[in-house]
Amino acid sequence: MKKTVLIMAGGRGERFWPKSRKTMPKQFLALTDDRRTMLQLTVDRILPLVEMGDVFIVTNRDYRELVRQQLPKLPPENILCEPIGRNTAPCIGLGAMHIAKKYGDADMIVLPSDHLIKYTSIFLDTLESACIVAEEGPNLVTLGITPDSPETGYGYIKFQPDRMLGRAFAVERFVEKPNLETAKEYLASEQYLWNSGMFIWRVSTILDNLEQHLPKTYQGLCRIREVIGSREAEEVLEREFNAFKSESIDYGVMEKAENIYTLSGSFGWDDVGSWLAVGRIKRSNEFGNVVDGRAVLVGTKNTIIQGAEKLIAAVGLENMIIVDSEDAILICRQEHAGDIKKVLERLRICNQTEYL
Amino acid sequence: MKKTVLIMAGGRGERFWPKSRKTMPKQFLALTDDRRTMLQLTVDRILPLVEMGDVFIVTNRDYRELVRQQLPKLPPENILCEPIGRNTAPCIGLGAMHIAKKYGDADMIVLPSDHLIKYTSIFLDTLESACIVAEEGPNLVTLGITPDSPETGYGYIKFQPDRMLGRAFAVERFVEKPNLETAKEYLASEQYLWNSGMFIWRVSTILDNLEQHLPKTYQGLCRIREVIGSREAEEVLEREFNAFKSESIDYGVMEKAENIYTLSGSFGWDDVGSWLAVGRIKRSNEFGNVVDGRAVLVGTKNTIIQGAEKLIAAVGLENMIIVDSEDAILICRQEHAGDIKKVLERLRICNQTEYL
Repeated sequence: MKKTVLIMAGGRGERFWPKSRKTMPKQFLALTDDRRTMLQLTVDRILPLVEMGDVFIVTNRDYRELVRQQLPKLPPENILCEPIGRNTAPCIGLGAMHIAKKYGDADMIVLPSDHLIKYTSIFLDTLESACIVAEEGPNLVTLGITPDSPETGYGYIKFQPDRMLGRAFAVERFVEKPNLETAKEYLASEQYLWNSGMFIWRVSTILDNLEQHLPKTYQGLCRIREVIGSREAEEVLEREFNAFKSESIDYGVMEKAENIYTLSGSFGWDDVGSWLAVGRIKRSNEFGNVVDGRAVLVGTKNTIIQGAEKLIAAVGLENMIIVDSEDAILICRQEHAGDIKKVLERLRICNQTEYL
Repeated sequence: MKKTVLIMAGGRGERFWPKSRKTMPKQFLALTDDRRTMLQLTVDRILPLVEMGDVFIVTNRDYRELVRQQLPKLPPENILCEPIGRNTAPCIGLGAMHIAKKYGDADMIVLPSDHLIKYTSIFLDTLESACIVAEEGPNLVTLGITPDSPETGYGYIKFQPDRMLGRAFAVERFVEKPNLETAKEYLASEQYLWNSGMFIWRVSTILDNLEQHLPKTYQGLCRIREVIGSREAEEVLEREFNAFKSESIDYGVMEKAENIYTLSGSFGWDDVGSWLAVGRIKRSNEFGNVVDGRAVLVGTKNTIIQGAEKLIAAVGLENMIIVDSEDAILICRQEHAGDIKKVLERLRICNQTEYL
């Protein structure tokens, strides 16, 4: 069956401030690589499996030009722009309708645009197996990541070790981010995987499920589909998206649907959730420092430095994050990386929107 | 007797990098005040005692224009430029010759341009008392600072509590920077003051002492004096300074001379020796942070932030120094402030002279 991919690139990630901004979110930055952005790497990675003409990007209207610049070979009509973000269910529904209009039915691989995957060949092999499961019936397949630590920042998938279809396990249930104790139990039980937010299904399967579990959203999506390519397209899209309830595909569909399967993946996945990820991913020197840009380090270790134009001099530092950007500098202790969002809250309160 | 002042402003302080540079040393920066530079404050402070026409500035040739800009009311001929730095003895000798040429004899107050003095009226009162002692005989008077801690970064003056002249004590000897144990003994003995590098004497007294203790330098200074104001002035100055031995007034004269007196001062003196001084001097907020420029602080305390154009966001920091400048950013733990010079060493080794 025809294989297509939908890449979700509408996020406005705040955790990579001050490099990531409202006008330049994480997926458009080269955070894990010296040259290619995370969106570009996501496309590069999937191309052995899918033709460029079958790659669809859903993003916000504000980022259309960024996508066009970063993916010059992508057919412009494959950039699907949401007028407003309504979480993943309407986003995936919009993609499904476009693919359905073009191909009738097809395999549909849904991927975030801002994750790192180190072992591309293992990843592609896992996707191929997932497509087989998706083609065998009205199955919704999700990739689960084999945990190597009791992470409290991810949702988990409980699978049934004795119910397999192909290489996939039947999913018993999805669970939200656990506390540390629960996460440790999950890890010990060997029945839980991390929820990666990557999905594989036939377009017809996800549309049937949207119709059943989110009928109002489905009807709006149908009205959008009718006018794709016509003069009214923009107007209808705007109206319907404004009317949509904000709904994630996990809560809106996956937790209610039947026939959910998961394939466990071990392909060097990282959700690149904060600056700490850059420390994990990029090459460090003998003192554990990860440095981009011009820097002079004196008595400094385990420190992440992301420079811009200016020279950065670090003296006597340990476990720090230093990021320079065009108009703002971040200096943050690594254990406080989660508090970067508080900086953005303050900026919002003080109406200093130019820095957001 | 006529009162004159010689302000030494030729230093190239490195400890305020990256704000202080070879082209813009500490004394030309507003480090302790929001508007006035340290040189300007030094002149402001002394003007109740001395007329502007009797203020002489010795600096390096490279800084003539900076002095002119910062002190527009100073007579241009009062800017005395050294072709090359030869420490304080030739510097003070050059000033003494200019003053002698203009006035024959006069009181001469010698001040660094880069110290902070909080209580101007107490300072001026101390200077007046010092002038009386200087006028009473061939006395060399130095201001000693009453210590409030066992500082290891300053030289000390041992005075004789039972030998006074006016308000001054006779000096028994000068001692170099002590280790902590010795510094504690000095403090406990109540017979030691910090050596501030501020001097008061008659011009004739210091010239006699230079003739006696540094005769070669004295002879060179005499040749310079002969041609002051003539066409050859620059050429002779260049030749003589190149020939001078580098010599401090402390080693070259004070430690060998007779009739040394010290007045103890308690006028809120700080030598502004490193970024830590900015933390001591400037107003801090409730969390002990001293902030200049635009900044957002989250969970941050006892941190010194000196911004430039960019917003600085500090998250989870304690006891840090953050300084932004046009082309370089410093992030330094306060206890490592002394290692800033290592940054400059590295830059020199790597030939990145644009940052020096």
